Amino acid sequence: MLVRNEMEKFKKYVSVKDEDHFYHQGAVELLIFNFLLILTILTIWLFKNHRFRFLHETGGAMLYGLVMGLIIRYVTKSPDVESGTVYECEKLKSGPSTLLINITNQVYEYQYKREISHHNVNGHQGNAMLQKMTFDPSIFFNILLPPIIFHAGYSLKKRHFFRNLGSILTYAFLGTAISCIVIGLIMYGFVKAMVHIGQLKQWEFHFTDCLFFGSLMSATDPVTVLAIFHELNVDTDLYTLLFGESVLNDAVAIVLTHSISIYSPKENPNAFDAAAFFQSVGNFLGIFAGSFAMGSSYAVVTHLTKFTKLCEFPMLETGLFFLLSWSAFLSAEAAGLTGIVAVLFCGVTQAHYTYNNLSPDSKMRTKQLFEFMNFLAENVIFCYMGLALFTFQNHIFNPLFIFGALVAVFVARAANIYPLSFLLNLGRKQKIPGNFQHMMMFSGLRGAIAFALAIRDTNSQPQQMMFSTALLMVFFTVWVFGGGTTPMLTWLQIRVGVDPDEDLKAKAASQSASDLDKNTTKAESAWLFRIWYGFDHKYLKPLLTHTGPPLTSTLPEWCNPIARLLTSPTAYGDQLKDGDTVFIINNDELTENYDSSAHIPVPAQDSTGSIQATGKEDIQEGDLGLGGYKLQLQHTADQPQKNSLA
Amino acid sequence: MLVRNEMEKFKKYVSVKDEDHFYHQGAVELLIFNFLLILTILTIWLFKNHRFRFLHETGGAMLYGLVMGLIIRYVTKSPDVESGTVYECEKLKSGPSTLLINITNQVYEYQYKREISHHNVNGHQGNAMLQKMTFDPSIFFNILLPPIIFHAGYSLKKRHFFRNLGSILTYAFLGTAISCIVIGLIMYGFVKAMVHIGQLKQWEFHFTDCLFFGSLMSATDPVTVLAIFHELNVDTDLYTLLFGESVLNDAVAIVLTHSISIYSPKENPNAFDAAAFFQSVGNFLGIFAGSFAMGSSYAVVTHLTKFTKLCEFPMLETGLFFLLSWSAFLSAEAAGLTGIVAVLFCGVTQAHYTYNNLSPDSKMRTKQLFEFMNFLAENVIFCYMGLALFTFQNHIFNPLFIFGALVAVFVARAANIYPLSFLLNLGRKQKIPGNFQHMMMFSGLRGAIAFALAIRDTNSQPQQMMFSTALLMVFFTVWVFGGGTTPMLTWLQIRVGVDPDEDLKAKAASQSASDLDKNTTKAESAWLFRIWYGFDHKYLKPLLTHTGPPLTSTLPEWCNPIARLLTSPTAYGDQLKDGDTVFIINNDELTENYDSSAHIPVPAQDSTGSIQATGKEDIQEGDLGLGGYKLQLQHTADQPQKNSLA
Repeated sequence: MLVRNEMEKFKKYVSVKDEDHFYHQGAVELLIFNFLLILTILTIWLFKNHRFRFLHETGGAMLYGLVMGLIIRYVTKSPDVESGTVYECEKLKSGPSTLLINITNQVYEYQYKREISHHNVNGHQGNAMLQKMTFDPSIFFNILLPPIIFHAGYSLKKRHFFRNLGSILTYAFLGTAISCIVIGLIMYGFVKAMVHIGQLKQWEFHFTDCLFFGSLMSATDPVTVLAIFHELNVDTDLYTLLFGESVLNDAVAIVLTHSISIYSPKENPNAFDAAAFFQSVGNFLGIFAGSFAMGSSYAVVTHLTKFTKLCEFPMLETGLFFLLSWSAFLSAEAAGLTGIVAVLFCGVTQAHYTYNNLSPDSKMRTKQLFEFMNFLAENVIFCYMGLALFTFQNHIFNPLFIFGALVAVFVARAANIYPLSFLLNLGRKQKIPGNFQHMMMFSGLRGAIAFALAIRDTNSQPQQMMFSTALLMVFFTVWVFGGGTTPMLTWLQIRVGVDPDEDLKAKAASQSASDLDKNTTKAESAWLFRIWYGFDHKYLKPLLTHTGPPLTSTLPEWCNPIARLLTSPTAYGDQLKDGDTVFIINNDELTENYDSSAHIPVPAQDSTGSIQATGKEDIQEGDLGLGGYKLQLQHTADQPQKNSLA
Repeated sequence: MLVRNEMEKFKKYVSVKDEDHFYHQGAVELLIFNFLLILTILTIWLFKNHRFRFLHETGGAMLYGLVMGLIIRYVTKSPDVESGTVYECEKLKSGPSTLLINITNQVYEYQYKREISHHNVNGHQGNAMLQKMTFDPSIFFNILLPPIIFHAGYSLKKRHFFRNLGSILTYAFLGTAISCIVIGLIMYGFVKAMVHIGQLKQWEFHFTDCLFFGSLMSATDPVTVLAIFHELNVDTDLYTLLFGESVLNDAVAIVLTHSISIYSPKENPNAFDAAAFFQSVGNFLGIFAGSFAMGSSYAVVTHLTKFTKLCEFPMLETGLFFLLSWSAFLSAEAAGLTGIVAVLFCGVTQAHYTYNNLSPDSKMRTKQLFEFMNFLAENVIFCYMGLALFTFQNHIFNPLFIFGALVAVFVARAANIYPLSFLLNLGRKQKIPGNFQHMMMFSGLRGAIAFALAIRDTNSQPQQMMFSTALLMVFFTVWVFGGGTTPMLTWLQIRVGVDPDEDLKAKAASQSASDLDKNTTKAESAWLFRIWYGFDHKYLKPLLTHTGPPLTSTLPEWCNPIARLLTSPTAYGDQLKDGDTVFIINNDELTENYDSSAHIPVPAQDSTGSIQATGKEDIQEGDLGLGGYKLQLQHTADQPQKNSLA
């Protein structure tokens, strides 16, 4: 009887404790995020309704996160008195991933979370609520970032991007390297000064740490400024330059951060070790190239949907598209490469090829799905950044270091934009004017990537100091520069609302392929890209999509059997005007405008998707051999027909 | 120098270990799921293409999960040798949520996962990969189940549902109670027998445990059979009966399980304790009513979108809709109620009111979004159930218990369907024929809910035995009965492909409101529901949506100022034919057919969404004051206009 009662008590205790632990607590955390997001959405709506542009939605999301963090920190109590005490365990040699501990005759399972430094032990470890809200950085990297980056790649405006590709690559690769080194050097100076006045111990902060900080602070944010730009229809070239730069420089900064973190000079950590340096450079190149290859090859796998009849089932098609894109990210991560880079190029390639293979319904679905996921992920991240200021428990705010970072970030941005623009202008037909340069300088906001890179590892004191400083820099730049974007555009006299005539011009140019446009296009897109375009149009597009000239006409004759197998029947209508690359480029641009320009990361302006479907009833009616819908289909499909009769 | 090198080594170790632990490992797990889902999608496509119906997609997903589980179990090695050993800790009194342990002078943070019984300690604890794949049950409850249940509520066919409401409620409430008690009693018999032959110790398994098992095994699965039914257009009444029953009985079973788990007789656990019993009944009613109220009130909050102009921003609207629906679930969970019930009724209410307030674009977006989430969540759950057979580390398969469960489930299903059908047929004008009853008997599959309830707590041996048995029952019913659905329909001579003429009949009936239909409608929908419909049409619809008669005409005159404030300007066109409830019901049905019948959980047949948009360019063009889209809008919007001119 005693045994039975004890078992009973034991079971009761277990189930109550477990339930509280798992379900309700998890629900409360998620509810807090939901609540923040709902508030943010209502605020965005209010701002949009009143055309208020001095605080962008991302800034608003951070603000709400901040307030919520404050409440959680100072209102919730610490229910867990045991925490903060370190227990000794002499029997263990290293930390196992699962630990079974016998406490007063009951066995508890504990899961390895992280190693912590001795100095962190006496933080605010006691507040379980705070701990729950500070979620695992892996959620950032595996779940929240991929949709944002994929969406950026998927919504890239190819035409303008390729026209400015040289400049974008220069800013992204060379510019990020300059920025990283400049920030690293300035921070090293500040660190030396801090050591000198006794705020820091010499051995805590090496030059590689400074460079690490430099690389993570070099990732500029593509969200806030570009959303405003898009809303105001700022000059397309400026938009493309900033968009391309900030998206690619995220990828570069991530790989750079990784390379620096594995740069380990053999002897003196402050001395320069050529072997280790070149190893890091090789690493950088290898990881970048590998991730690029991984992303593109996943996109190519998706292209094979061309040969299936999956387009009859839009839901399956959308699902496959979504899963393969995410797999590109995950495979790269699992292989030790950089998932963000893989998913970026997967998105670019998908937009270029796969999109053409999708059924009209799937085009709309994928577009809206990625838009929605991007929107949610973005706002979750910004809310979370606000929260982190108060819920993260090991902040180290050092005024000198923060001041140093502020100085370094601006000097580095200037050292990136102005000299490179000067060099680029030497080669560019269409110069980058001064006011564009100032705007680019001003638009160097830090956002999600800098934050995610900094939070990845916050164990040592230097890392905590870097994290706290990076967080403050994000707040400062998003609020001050994000809010100042509209006045700055006015002050710099940058044209807004220029998109329609730009597009008209482009359209006219593509139709007549006039000499003027031919020349500028030739001058701006280098020979390498013209060759690529020709190759792409002749071989890749016909192979991977339903468009383009048939492979039978572009491949040598002996390849005919294979070519016939690989060419889509719909491709035979299209004939290649041999060598007319300019036409191809412009033509691509037109189809692109028609297809994919509607998914720029601005949530409110995306009602074109459904409009695009209007011309396509014939296609979609073909999909519906399933009796259940016949009545309502006829009902809805009647309307356009009535229109045509009237 | 020594200190510096040690720090260096320490940091290096930390960063490498952390990275491996967090990112790559997490990526691999997610990749495995992605891979399984991709395989499942391709299989579904193959099946659909070849009209193969003997293994449904859910069965396929489980099969792939099973194979993958087998591979993970027997191919991956155990890298973690430390696990499986229990360490003593005398200083602790209870298990804190976070444990800091000093191992060889480094502090590790461990997070509380669960309590485990002593007998589980020597399981296969060593394989870290297996542990990773067995994910937290809270993910089921907080993330995977809500979209499925919400989608079920959102896609409810109101007309047929309300026509059969009495029968559905009888099956769901009374039937589930009968099923629970019958299973409980039979299992108790088997448990007694097991004790008798020495397979089980007396004190391990009480009658409440048997009832607990009965309640969790009473949740029938709405996914597999209904997908096949929908594909084949099985008789609408049978479809509605099964759909309503299986959705509501999930809700009932969940609350019942919760009530039974907190039923605690004071003294002898096998004796009947009236006080505790009535407390449990009260608990059941309280939780059910509370969850219902919570779900509906969240839906009402969403209705307030009527007064905002949020519909100008479809993305924000979709986001708000999504977040509020999820919040309904989370709030209920956080308040100790049942989130699944809340989100079910939230979905029903949203479909009834909020859906009418949405912009056409948002209607399509929400529909497709929930469809997609439902599709993914469903397949993840079924894959995971397959995986769990091999990755769960504490299975207890007892042949006698499994055989008992098999018998009990069938007897209980029979004791539910046949007597209740007989009773219902006494009152119904349109009888439930014998072949419908046999089909309902046959369609009692067990699925995600039974699994989720069983996995919620698997600490004690009885719980593990119940979990293993429930898992096998899911496999058996999904594969055997899911696969046998099509032959069974033929064998029972149940009409298939009947939907269109049913709909036509309904349409004709609503237009003429003929006497015949009036009579049947009156007879079948009880007076309570006619009163409800009248109230709904007169007061709730005008208050919460843009449709219905203006409140100024339905409310007493002294309410006019408020009524004018609350009525939407568009409502004034509509005039109420006083008292004509039949007309209202039929009218509702028509708008419902037009609006929401396209989102039944069958992934491949949902291309109507975009078609619905065709008649609505005028509305959507109004949304687009933003220059960036003007060109392509004109471009795409041209086509229908051309049609109308030709």
